[in-house]
Amino acid sequence: MKTEIVAVGTELLLGQIVDTNSSWMGEQLALAGIDSHYQTKVGDNWDRIEDAFRLALDRSDAVIVCGGLGPTQDDITREVLASVMGVELVLDERIAERIRSMFASRSRPMPENNLRQAMVPVGASPIPQQPGTAPGLVAPIRWVQGVGAIAPGAEPPAGAEVLDRVVYVVPGVPYEMREMMNGTVLGDLQRRAGVSATIESRVLRTWGQSESGLAEMLAGRIDELDEAGNPTLAFLASGIEGIKVRITAKGADSAEAWQLIDAEQAVLEPLLGDLVFAYDDDNMETAVLAELGRLGLTLGVAETITGGRMANRLSSAEAAMRAG
Amino acid sequence: MKTEIVAVGTELLLGQIVDTNSSWMGEQLALAGIDSHYQTKVGDNWDRIEDAFRLALDRSDAVIVCGGLGPTQDDITREVLASVMGVELVLDERIAERIRSMFASRSRPMPENNLRQAMVPVGASPIPQQPGTAPGLVAPIRWVQGVGAIAPGAEPPAGAEVLDRVVYVVPGVPYEMREMMNGTVLGDLQRRAGVSATIESRVLRTWGQSESGLAEMLAGRIDELDEAGNPTLAFLASGIEGIKVRITAKGADSAEAWQLIDAEQAVLEPLLGDLVFAYDDDNMETAVLAELGRLGLTLGVAETITGGRMANRLSSAEAAMRAG
Repeated sequence: MKTEIVAVGTELLLGQIVDTNSSWMGEQLALAGIDSHYQTKVGDNWDRIEDAFRLALDRSDAVIVCGGLGPTQDDITREVLASVMGVELVLDERIAERIRSMFASRSRPMPENNLRQAMVPVGASPIPQQPGTAPGLVAPIRWVQGVGAIAPGAEPPAGAEVLDRVVYVVPGVPYEMREMMNGTVLGDLQRRAGVSATIESRVLRTWGQSESGLAEMLAGRIDELDEAGNPTLAFLASGIEGIKVRITAKGADSAEAWQLIDAEQAVLEPLLGDLVFAYDDDNMETAVLAELGRLGLTLGVAETITGGRMANRLSSAEAAMRAG
Repeated sequence: MKTEIVAVGTELLLGQIVDTNSSWMGEQLALAGIDSHYQTKVGDNWDRIEDAFRLALDRSDAVIVCGGLGPTQDDITREVLASVMGVELVLDERIAERIRSMFASRSRPMPENNLRQAMVPVGASPIPQQPGTAPGLVAPIRWVQGVGAIAPGAEPPAGAEVLDRVVYVVPGVPYEMREMMNGTVLGDLQRRAGVSATIESRVLRTWGQSESGLAEMLAGRIDELDEAGNPTLAFLASGIEGIKVRITAKGADSAEAWQLIDAEQAVLEPLLGDLVFAYDDDNMETAVLAELGRLGLTLGVAETITGGRMANRLSSAEAAMRAG
């Protein structure tokens, strides 16, 4: 199930916004066991968006398109998709109603423009999650490489191989995109790919060794894991955050994956000794604060040179721990 | 002069690293007056890198390739480029010597692998700037769309249109990439594009109005500028950093561009009043510190809730002002 990502928006090409969405999606696809081979950024230009869609549909089974779903005239992802599919856009009354009521609940008049967001290509379905005004779309497409989409009811050229492709469209607003990816896209991709396995991972946070030093300490175990293939290890040098050792395991279900991870952790930790200071999203600050809490100690900080940086990191961590 | 960017590295696709390089390059290309229409990320896979190079050479005049220049076996940008060019790689003795002396100056033995970095495709030239061990490359290519490169000395197919393309290869390490972009790539692109104009810009940092509020305050002036076309204005909402108003001007030389910017600033500032608190890379902290300095005042900070954040921002700014 080859999947690729197309991010739409001139602001991405101009570097006014860094495309963190594609990075996040790439990570989620990897964790879900879905291959992703290309990520493309393209500006708000009809011809180039269309070229990017056609190329992606020629070479990948699934395409995730991110962005270009806003209410203004330069947001044309919907229109280009319908054109590539060879279908019309029709107003989806339920989406229109949802958008109207969003504006009403904020006591704001709805600009007519916003109804553009309720237009859906014939044959595509809205993604159920819709945290903002922009609806996401799932568009199954019958595709012939080098030819294009076979419109609903149309016959493919004689002898042509018809491929089942799917395009997902999600908004560029990060929390909207994430909700749709988690709620619909990733699961749908796994279902189509026949991925029944579940992939889980845990990060051991380490401090005090270089990446090559860690690789040396774990060399024997890495060789064994390379041969077995599951779980896998990855090192990620993260600057001031130390070096992360990620254990990733695949199982028939989540419980089996976690069992493999727990077993692997039990092998690695004796080898790593006290280099491991925390797990997953915990960091040096939360580790220090947890230890202080355990000992019933409080901490006063007087800083020079670092000018409040230590206090800032510690208090941010404390706030996160309280909120969590 | 259509230019596109190809970023190479599986870690980019997996989201382990956010591709800030492409964003930065996109911004620099825009400021240099060079069109850039696509940015593609591709993993460390020969076939897919080759496909990405061929596609880029088919549709763009210039291609900037970033990454895949390291010393290890999975860094294959050099090899794929030579293959696409239809030429051999040869050892560049001067680069080899430079790499050897870098290791010698750190009293470290040079792994033989590192000499891979001194291999250059026949017909390509090393980029003079080489802050790390990875040399950048400038590779002029004679290209026939849909066919490929015409190797040096070879004849193009009869009747084929031969296009002059150029590929720049720069390392993925940000400061190395930037030094090569600023030192060689951007200037070379402008020369090839016949861009004789110089583009300069200044940012007015504002606080206290929304983006649409600013647009309303400046509406009349924006209309005038839209008609004249030079200079141009752009708004950039930057969260806690306020909203940036960027004036960009094109001139026959730098002095002319700055003259236009100064004149435009003199028009805008009376309209914006005291919303403008700083310019370019200065921010709220440096503005406050400069004002305190002017008044001969010192500042003590006692923080709750923000837990050192204010002290941290102020002291970072102070350090930057001293260093600057």
